[in-house]
Amino acid sequence: MAPLADGFTYGQWSLVYNSLSFGIAGMGSATIFFWLQLPNVTKSYRTALIITGLVTAIATYHYVRIFNSWVDAFEVKNSKGGDYTVTVSGNPFNDAYRYVDWLLTVPLLLIELILVMKLPHEETVALGWKLGLASALMVALGYPGEIQDDLSVRWFWWALAMLPFCYVVMTLVGGLNEATSKQPDSVKGLVVTARYLTVISWLTYPFVYIIKNIGLAGTDATAYEQVGYSLADVVAKAVFGVLIWAIASGKSAEEENGLIPK
Amino acid sequence: MAPLADGFTYGQWSLVYNSLSFGIAGMGSATIFFWLQLPNVTKSYRTALIITGLVTAIATYHYVRIFNSWVDAFEVKNSKGGDYTVTVSGNPFNDAYRYVDWLLTVPLLLIELILVMKLPHEETVALGWKLGLASALMVALGYPGEIQDDLSVRWFWWALAMLPFCYVVMTLVGGLNEATSKQPDSVKGLVVTARYLTVISWLTYPFVYIIKNIGLAGTDATAYEQVGYSLADVVAKAVFGVLIWAIASGKSAEEENGLIPK
Repeated sequence: MAPLADGFTYGQWSLVYNSLSFGIAGMGSATIFFWLQLPNVTKSYRTALIITGLVTAIATYHYVRIFNSWVDAFEVKNSKGGDYTVTVSGNPFNDAYRYVDWLLTVPLLLIELILVMKLPHEETVALGWKLGLASALMVALGYPGEIQDDLSVRWFWWALAMLPFCYVVMTLVGGLNEATSKQPDSVKGLVVTARYLTVISWLTYPFVYIIKNIGLAGTDATAYEQVGYSLADVVAKAVFGVLIWAIASGKSAEEENGLIPK
Repeated sequence: MAPLADGFTYGQWSLVYNSLSFGIAGMGSATIFFWLQLPNVTKSYRTALIITGLVTAIATYHYVRIFNSWVDAFEVKNSKGGDYTVTVSGNPFNDAYRYVDWLLTVPLLLIELILVMKLPHEETVALGWKLGLASALMVALGYPGEIQDDLSVRWFWWALAMLPFCYVVMTLVGGLNEATSKQPDSVKGLVVTARYLTVISWLTYPFVYIIKNIGLAGTDATAYEQVGYSLADVVAKAVFGVLIWAIASGKSAEEENGLIPK
């Protein structure tokens, strides 16, 4: 990947800076919320909720790292009375943090969705392996393209990563229909929402990736990419996690009232 | 050990950098997972789960140290418009962190496996001492070779360390057969998997060690070694720990249902 170049305005630079800080605050507070809720759900849903918090905790760690890397990569100063000037410091901005994060959190996200559905044991294990491995493969295939400046090579890896992506999305949309129909009525709507939120929030990633594929380059492309990935991450991890908690909470209440088996 | 030399490409340098950060995120999140699961297992398996989390907690600490040591050992800059250049800073890269880590965690790893099997008290104590001391001896014998540049001396200590290594592996493969056959059916497969995962993940260490024994030197050898040890550690500690938790969780459910004695 080519090093960052000069040309960022203070507005662009601080938009990314504040998006990354928003990522830290959003992911960190979501983590605390999920784990503090642990005693309020029954044992059946605690592993799902623990993993929901792990996903945002891992993301918090990576957002702190990305934020620090962004800050170190620039020198931002103003000459007395003048405007702020942003110049690259020469220190590398490490983009790989996002991919290391996704390699860990994307399989875990799918596993938390499967766990909160509380399917029969064999189905849980089989779905966990299938969706977990497919999503890890998706992230691994995306990375070689992300660090390329050659547009055709970017498209090649983008297309390869889209294969496991489509498999996961099709499983979420089609394959889980039967399992969803067996969910208690009170949370059926939430489970459907969680599945579609996964699909919709995930769809933003290939589009953010495409920003650079279509030849957009320079400071605008970098700024859009960082802000786009940050917003997509908060939706896919923290907002999605709130849905998982709501499902766990609703099903726990039904268990306690004896409406569904423990 | 000879100090690090110049010649790292930015790609090599950041591959190690990101592997070490992956180590921090993987080990740290595994630790939280194990400890948050403590209330969900019965008292019989809590010590095993506490130790499982200790192993990854100790590893998290060491990965933070190794990461910082790796960063401090280099200067990574780009001259405007050019690519990143990586030069050694002159600060030492401390390799001993890994051995101090293993000296603590490897005996603990074996002890968590023995504890989760819940053997009769005398057998637990005897196995704990035998495997714990043999594995500590293995790590202690490996270190004098690791810091050697003389290949024949490296091979000498490698061979010495392989003696307790083979003893531990043979005990895991053969000696624990009888004890495994007494495990409840629901977790027998997991116990077998945990024993073989230990053997397979451990086998990667002598091979990573050999990278430098066979005369591979320079930046490639260092990069492969760091990435290899990091991946092996995550499998041997975090993935292995998930199996220990699954065994503890399965046996706790059987205890609570009165299928096995408390």
